[in-house]
Amino acid sequence: MPDHKLDVLGVGNAIVDVLAKADDTLLKTHDIPKGGMILIDEEQATKIYADMAAAVEISGGSAANSIACVASLGGKGGFVGKVADDALGEVFRHDLRAMGVEFDTKPMPDGPGTGRCLVNVTPDAQRSMSTYLGAAGFVTPDDIDPAQIKRAEITFFEGYLFEQPDARDGFLHACEVARDNGKRTALTLSDASVVERQFEVLHDFIGARVDILLANEDEAKALFETDDIDAAIEKARGLCPLTAITMSEKGSVLIPLDGDTVKVDAIGPDQLQDTTGAGDAYAAGLLFGLAKGADLAKAGGLGSLCASEVISHFGARPAQSLKALASNAGLL
Amino acid sequence: MPDHKLDVLGVGNAIVDVLAKADDTLLKTHDIPKGGMILIDEEQATKIYADMAAAVEISGGSAANSIACVASLGGKGGFVGKVADDALGEVFRHDLRAMGVEFDTKPMPDGPGTGRCLVNVTPDAQRSMSTYLGAAGFVTPDDIDPAQIKRAEITFFEGYLFEQPDARDGFLHACEVARDNGKRTALTLSDASVVERQFEVLHDFIGARVDILLANEDEAKALFETDDIDAAIEKARGLCPLTAITMSEKGSVLIPLDGDTVKVDAIGPDQLQDTTGAGDAYAAGLLFGLAKGADLAKAGGLGSLCASEVISHFGARPAQSLKALASNAGLL
Repeated sequence: MPDHKLDVLGVGNAIVDVLAKADDTLLKTHDIPKGGMILIDEEQATKIYADMAAAVEISGGSAANSIACVASLGGKGGFVGKVADDALGEVFRHDLRAMGVEFDTKPMPDGPGTGRCLVNVTPDAQRSMSTYLGAAGFVTPDDIDPAQIKRAEITFFEGYLFEQPDARDGFLHACEVARDNGKRTALTLSDASVVERQFEVLHDFIGARVDILLANEDEAKALFETDDIDAAIEKARGLCPLTAITMSEKGSVLIPLDGDTVKVDAIGPDQLQDTTGAGDAYAAGLLFGLAKGADLAKAGGLGSLCASEVISHFGARPAQSLKALASNAGLL
Repeated sequence: MPDHKLDVLGVGNAIVDVLAKADDTLLKTHDIPKGGMILIDEEQATKIYADMAAAVEISGGSAANSIACVASLGGKGGFVGKVADDALGEVFRHDLRAMGVEFDTKPMPDGPGTGRCLVNVTPDAQRSMSTYLGAAGFVTPDDIDPAQIKRAEITFFEGYLFEQPDARDGFLHACEVARDNGKRTALTLSDASVVERQFEVLHDFIGARVDILLANEDEAKALFETDDIDAAIEKARGLCPLTAITMSEKGSVLIPLDGDTVKVDAIGPDQLQDTTGAGDAYAAGLLFGLAKGADLAKAGGLGSLCASEVISHFGARPAQSLKALASNAGLL
């Protein structure tokens, strides 16, 4: 058994992204909301894929993308997520391990294949995601290794997976282990629709068990039932020890339980190519910074820096060494 | 059964490329010659992949890349090649069909998985390829459908596949069908090492059955046993009805059995990103032009245009509509 410390341990969907160019007709034909994420079943996945253009496959998954960024920052990351025992599962595992991420969740021996996110990119540069969870939805409490949770400074959950009852039980179990061992937990809300569907259980879960909450503007508005982002920021104080609300090019705000709200500037990329993964990257920088004991301003700055790199190219995982970039920027 | 005409039918390796950044140490550790292509077995593939960085998967295969370019030019392309009945095989099939390519070769029901080309890109922008053929090497004469060959203006063979005895028998069978029906055959030599290993059978095959031969400088030198490219060009005349020799930024020469040699200029890309697939793309333009009855200069110009597009970005398949580019350039 490994006994080294982990900076951040992610628990989320083990997904391979399938990226292709598309026109609006494809979105309409298959009822895919532009810019959003919908869950689809295998039959829908087969139909949408059949209509998609030639594609590129690249490992994805929200929390897994974050952990890839933690590794690129020079941190020690771990991941818990479910793949099938198939070629795409091998691809997903390889790509995390190749970055030095600890990933030991046993693959599903049979049942559905490894999860896929069909990403259709329209000419307006918007990305519309249709996710077939496949094996990814089958994370259970048995996949949570208490010894691994104890080694992690922060255990980070992906909201998408919160909708799977077994995975949610796994979250609860992991939170108990973390809290009992003086470690912190973090949650990203993932999507406003997740917040709407899971409103009450999410509020209870966050209030009782989450130390660091991450939300973008839409998710924050949904969670705090307001159309006014300033009102959402106001309401955020008190729900949990720290809430981070990201607002794209307007930067982010960090709202601690005690102490002043910290505003963090966004860092403009040299060239904006693709905003996919911006939130995942921000989460990585913030959580890695906090795991290492940085103050809020510095941890938020690391988040902005990671997001800036990831949106400067296609794909949601870093293309350059985030450690080198952060070091050059005086953040590490 | 479909009864429409095909401009070009490719027969080659059905391969998914696995692209990752690498350093020279990885090449040395695994005896991978820089800039070349080696065939590896499954055990070697597992070892090399384990040492590779996080990667991107994209459909490849030399002749398949060419046929993707033919489709992008607005031509009707077909492909014959063997995948396994697995997720990567589905990816390969989808990506060709999504471009409108006819691809009906039955997958292997069991045995090795779909072939993979491990592409390691070093900081000097060189690409070193290690190919595990897997199912791709199992093309047999049974996979050649005479009715499909008859519908194809040009049937195009990939030299890499010439090294598989069953596939070579398939080539011979296809050539007979094509010739008997007044159709043309084309062959790309693929790699100088293929020429060296298959020297005598290749000469016999080309002299007896090939109408259009494609070679780069190294392959031409190997085939004509000279270190002088001008001597190779001189010797090329007479081997088969048309030989095209590509010389990177120096352009290409088209050497017909009768008539003058035609020199074709290369077209510089806006930005040279990645030379992988340049030869495949050139072949597509040349063969599509010839299938459509263009003269040598125009067909060669189409080849240069296709190569120029493909080297202006990462990946060996076209990112823009080659039809639109060729139309703007007055070549279509």
